[in-house]
Amino acid sequence: MVRLGLVGTGRIGQLHVETLLKSQIGELVGVTDLNLDAARACAERYGVPKVAHDVQDLLHNYDIQGLLICSSTNTHANYCLAAANAGKHIFCEKPIDADLARIDAVIHEVERTGVKMMVGFNRRFDPNHRRIKQSIEQGKIGTPHLLHIISRDPAPPPLEYIKVSGGMFFDMTIHDFDMARFLLGEVDEVYASAAVRVDPRIGEVGDVDTALITLKFLDGSLGTIDNSRQAVYGYDQRVEVFGSAGVLRSENVFPDEVTLSTAHSVERGLPKNFFMDRYLASYQAELETFVRCIAEDRGTPVTAHDGRAPVVMALAAQKSLAENRPVKLSEIQP
Amino acid sequence: MVRLGLVGTGRIGQLHVETLLKSQIGELVGVTDLNLDAARACAERYGVPKVAHDVQDLLHNYDIQGLLICSSTNTHANYCLAAANAGKHIFCEKPIDADLARIDAVIHEVERTGVKMMVGFNRRFDPNHRRIKQSIEQGKIGTPHLLHIISRDPAPPPLEYIKVSGGMFFDMTIHDFDMARFLLGEVDEVYASAAVRVDPRIGEVGDVDTALITLKFLDGSLGTIDNSRQAVYGYDQRVEVFGSAGVLRSENVFPDEVTLSTAHSVERGLPKNFFMDRYLASYQAELETFVRCIAEDRGTPVTAHDGRAPVVMALAAQKSLAENRPVKLSEIQP
Amino acid sequence: MVRLGLVGTGRIGQLHVETLLKSQIGELVGVTDLNLDAARACAERYGVPKVAHDVQDLLHNYDIQGLLICSSTNTHANYCLAAANAGKHIFCEKPIDADLARIDAVIHEVERTGVKMMVGFNRRFDPNHRRIKQSIEQGKIGTPHLLHIISRDPAPPPLEYIKVSGGMFFDMTIHDFDMARFLLGEVDEVYASAAVRVDPRIGEVGDVDTALITLKFLDGSLGTIDNSRQAVYGYDQRVEVFGSAGVLRSENVFPDEVTLSTAHSVERGLPKNFFMDRYLASYQAELETFVRCIAEDRGTPVTAHDGRAPVVMALAAQKSLAENRPVKLSEIQP
Amino acid sequence: MVRLGLVGTGRIGQLHVETLLKSQIGELVGVTDLNLDAARACAERYGVPKVAHDVQDLLHNYDIQGLLICSSTNTHANYCLAAANAGKHIFCEKPIDADLARIDAVIHEVERTGVKMMVGFNRRFDPNHRRIKQSIEQGKIGTPHLLHIISRDPAPPPLEYIKVSGGMFFDMTIHDFDMARFLLGEVDEVYASAAVRVDPRIGEVGDVDTALITLKFLDGSLGTIDNSRQAVYGYDQRVEVFGSAGVLRSENVFPDEVTLSTAHSVERGLPKNFFMDRYLASYQAELETFVRCIAEDRGTPVTAHDGRAPVVMALAAQKSLAENRPVKLSEIQP
Repeated sequence: MVRLGLVGTGRIGQLHVETLLKSQIGELVGVTDLNLDAARACAERYGVPKVAHDVQDLLHNYDIQGLLICSSTNTHANYCLAAANAGKHIFCEKPIDADLARIDAVIHEVERTGVKMMVGFNRRFDPNHRRIKQSIEQGKIGTPHLLHIISRDPAPPPLEYIKVSGGMFFDMTIHDFDMARFLLGEVDEVYASAAVRVDPRIGEVGDVDTALITLKFLDGSLGTIDNSRQAVYGYDQRVEVFGSAGVLRSENVFPDEVTLSTAHSVERGLPKNFFMDRYLASYQAELETFVRCIAEDRGTPVTAHDGRAPVVMALAAQKSLAENRPVKLSEIQP
Repeated sequence: MVRLGLVGTGRIGQLHVETLLKSQIGELVGVTDLNLDAARACAERYGVPKVAHDVQDLLHNYDIQGLLICSSTNTHANYCLAAANAGKHIFCEKPIDADLARIDAVIHEVERTGVKMMVGFNRRFDPNHRRIKQSIEQGKIGTPHLLHIISRDPAPPPLEYIKVSGGMFFDMTIHDFDMARFLLGEVDEVYASAAVRVDPRIGEVGDVDTALITLKFLDGSLGTIDNSRQAVYGYDQRVEVFGSAGVLRSENVFPDEVTLSTAHSVERGLPKNFFMDRYLASYQAELETFVRCIAEDRGTPVTAHDGRAPVVMALAAQKSLAENRPVKLSEIQP
Repeated sequence: MVRLGLVGTGRIGQLHVETLLKSQIGELVGVTDLNLDAARACAERYGVPKVAHDVQDLLHNYDIQGLLICSSTNTHANYCLAAANAGKHIFCEKPIDADLARIDAVIHEVERTGVKMMVGFNRRFDPNHRRIKQSIEQGKIGTPHLLHIISRDPAPPPLEYIKVSGGMFFDMTIHDFDMARFLLGEVDEVYASAAVRVDPRIGEVGDVDTALITLKFLDGSLGTIDNSRQAVYGYDQRVEVFGSAGVLRSENVFPDEVTLSTAHSVERGLPKNFFMDRYLASYQAELETFVRCIAEDRGTPVTAHDGRAPVVMALAAQKSLAENRPVKLSEIQP
Repeated sequence: MVRLGLVGTGRIGQLHVETLLKSQIGELVGVTDLNLDAARACAERYGVPKVAHDVQDLLHNYDIQGLLICSSTNTHANYCLAAANAGKHIFCEKPIDADLARIDAVIHEVERTGVKMMVGFNRRFDPNHRRIKQSIEQGKIGTPHLLHIISRDPAPPPLEYIKVSGGMFFDMTIHDFDMARFLLGEVDEVYASAAVRVDPRIGEVGDVDTALITLKFLDGSLGTIDNSRQAVYGYDQRVEVFGSAGVLRSENVFPDEVTLSTAHSVERGLPKNFFMDRYLASYQAELETFVRCIAEDRGTPVTAHDGRAPVVMALAAQKSLAENRPVKLSEIQP
């Protein structure tokens, strides 16, 4: 059994705890949190053996092999550096950091120490996205030409969060930037158009809530990302990849498959509304994969470099939006 | 151009007139109707050259090759006999008659005179049903095991019609009996269960409005027919054939493919509601086929025998319902 | 925490063990099995505290409040009697027994001792079936008129199992008989038609593998159950309820929502293929409900009487098939 | 009956002839074509009374009220001017011209003479697009935020055509530019990205075959148009409009609604493949609308200005692509 520690016992942290409860190959030996009461409550609820005083305690005193970093984003880089320095493998929620130089420092330390690092782009492990990826690789649609990612949240996060999140491109589109790379490879140029359509207060704090981003891939294909902070009908997560031999399309996931036809319409209920419900299986498969990479001493499928690239794309999108022009990723430097 | 005459200028008759207007291989040279004013109005509206006094006039004085019989059911057999006797090919709306002896007289005369006869089971020419039929013949589902026909009308016909129609099995299920034979071949035994669920007045005039009929086919497969006089959401016409290698299913036909997702539901509009809208293409293809059979001197795909078999099934279903037991078709004799 | 014991550590038993691992209201304190090695392996794998020698040991020495009976069908009735006699609540996998007199003995003992009993018709807890049930109760389709249950297995069980299972109506249709009652209430009459279409060896051991069963409900509605031992495209589980104000239909559940359009077809993968995958959520919700009924001292939603009724229907279907006539449930007596 | 003349007896011209055959309010009294043999063949086939020597003959000698212009694009403007000058109403296939100054001359003459003019953007009359338009107007999705138009042809036109068509934005995207305006109103800015992905020979003649175009609308909403010259699975025509209260989506139109499930997949056939099949109903409704506007002396729903605007958008898209930057429509002048 792979021995793991966890820092950050919030919503995502607890989800990982639950996944490890059922794992046949990994176990959680200790948790910690800047709020130690929260860490204690989590440990009690799930029967985690130990609560560490802090990350250093967790890294050095419980014989763990890997650290799961689920704390707030501004702590990610430091915890990554500490874990690498202690020779512990790293699973880090996205994004590593909003600052490229700090990400590069993490990458450097990870490479220097030789620990494994995996970044939490869980959607790569979703059955829908994974099937699309596999079908592309199997040549089902020939050469890809066009990509569309629809990614709309059911409701905006609190304004307080938006103020500190780094903006929609960083807290929301970042997943879609990763998905674009996952499906079609490296991007060369970004053009971002965006607007405040959902809530003027989002604009007042300097962010946008609606965006269309055009991507030009290195291989010559083209793509768009469609984002909205508020799809009133629920969490809208769809992908379409069009190629020389066909098209792959994913639909939303619904809690049931029942339709009702009446004198007025043919209707069904709404899609799954909450990201942790919609992506539950992908969070589980993601963590299971990380544990397996340690157990079998294999490379991780989402590397520190994969954690860096979407940040570059987000920075390019910000620049594109500010200057209303297409921006090459090569323009973005630490 | 095949020269045709038409008796019966009601709804279905006019539909056939419109089809012949566009035909490259057939033309309508004369019409008649027991109500001669209706015949004249029809001829004027569509530019039909002649209005005949009656069927004999139409059969003998306009050099027609075939007669389209779209008059009321009780006249079908006599007009068939007259047409055959005059050496004219026959297209007769379903059913030929409700009386087996009269049907047999028609069959005898058709065989004696050698004219072609085709019965108007238009649904065989619907793109959905036809594709299912073809896919079965191509072996796509292997050996058929089970059949379901859902066939529900959007609203009951007028009570006055129900009183004289011969009952639901004759005016409505007759299409489904034909569809069952079309798809899976001859039936050996019928068990009918039925009820009055839609409108008690239908029960008061001695009919049912809701039915489930079990069919045992000669080849050993089993099937059901589901009928209702009233599907409030529109005309419901679906077929499912399950076999050793798969299942074929048809869905209803909609006027558009638009869905609307709101905070309440994902919805679309209702399916096509009117049988002449839903089955427009099948009526056209059916008549075009009849004309082509004359033009190319080929046998018709729906024969007088095909017109007889569903009547036997309807009589068996009536007997089954009256006696609440499965009834062999061999029990039904003229 | 409600303290529970489990007898029978096979496939279903283990599923219940996993559910209890995550439960906030129930815990498994001991397991047993006629094969004690299997019980020990299960306890070790899932960390169950105790392995009892036998059911009596489990009932009397571990302070349990309820017994989960997941052993082979022929042991169900005896274990139910023992549990009731010991004052323990009972969760019993379906069916209680194939013999009505023995079921009645269990019902009598349960009523005498006042323990709670719940029978494992898990499909009632499936999100699809539950939504249909709720929508009927909310009047979404008005008065029900017609019901169709499609219930086809991906592949037949081993012949050895079929020989002892009591026949398809008992081991497979039993779920659909329960579903029919769950959705539309009590049945008055059954007409069963069936055939051997999948594998002649099934016929040689005296069973059928394909069936269409017509149900007449006490309230006047009509229904069919469609069963096949082998749907090559996967587990086919659909329900349709048609009523005066609309129709409810459930579709199969798929592992993903991806479609692929090529030059040949528009296609998607197959539905979930394994019943424990398809009905995982319903098994979990079912057991959670049982535990909650104990914790909150409420009546169970699937009673011993609900366990008896589908057995009556299966016996009626057998009689109907043997005599090729509709059979009233009132003809079936212990 | 409104009396009409037709110039241009090619594919689209013949379709309009067929529509008028069934019209209750309009009739075709004469046709002409630069190729007079083609005009004569058309007249004979459909029974058109007269073949005119040329457009002037048609305009002045047959007492027509309106002229249908279905000839090659380079003749449109001159025929429009001639018709307006003769006081005849104009139905002109899209585009009026590729040159803004010539379009403006037509608009000027139409306004001076007061004739009605309608441009053939038939897709506005498609049941799917029309329902989306109506649903937006009815407020079903609140305020629109985002638009996606997927518009892919089944196969590229001949290279000879591409050389003279004015490029993909003019011969293909022009429909989508109109659709964007039809659904969300005026566009302020265009950013076009495009590539040669389908056939390098298309690039060699200076065109692209794959495009993603971003639109910024005056009201602040954003949109994309996705074009490919070759969707191997057929004609792909979908629209999605996302707004504050929901989303509207249209799916492709299929020739039948049959699915086949086998051991390998769940599949259906391909969507309608040919634009005249897919949009047959819209061509018919469009022409019927034009005739009705004359008969009832009402304004046309697609004006000469509506014919000009998509040309401006196409020119802006060309400029955007050439300069790889967003282009304001106000930059485009005659």
